[in-house]
Amino acid sequence: MTETVTLKVAMMCGGCEGAVRRVLNNMPGVQKVDIDLPSQKVVVTGDVTQDAVLQTVAKSGKKTELWPQ
Amino acid sequence: MTETVTLKVAMMCGGCEGAVRRVLNNMPGVQKVDIDLPSQKVVVTGDVTQDAVLQTVAKSGKKTELWPQ
Repeated sequence: MTETVTLKVAMMCGGCEGAVRRVLNNMPGVQKVDIDLPSQKVVVTGDVTQDAVLQTVAKSGKKTELWPQ
Repeated sequence: MTETVTLKVAMMCGGCEGAVRRVLNNMPGVQKVDIDLPSQKVVVTGDVTQDAVLQTVAKSGKKTELWPQ
């Protein structure tokens, strides 16, 4: 089932963005990763759960949280 | 046994450095992490192996290699 998970991830530069993109692209089930660096918004689409996406991004060492509603 | 592992890690800003420091500080056995951002040099001291340190840093999504001799 396709889910969309939106996170706020502490990213400061293109290197930060690249690292987050790399760990998410390596995650099973992920189909699409959209990142907007200025707003630190990361949108992940795929056969994934919110918890699994949060844990994967946390492994990158970046501070992360669900996008504030 | 205390080992010292020296890596070159692609880091561009303080956020990159912080992420690498965070994943290494969470790694079992690590006693000390020294990072020089301008030279992208990371020196890890502790009861660790070269392979395990490389794998841990790779999980951060940063490109990494052993420091060129």
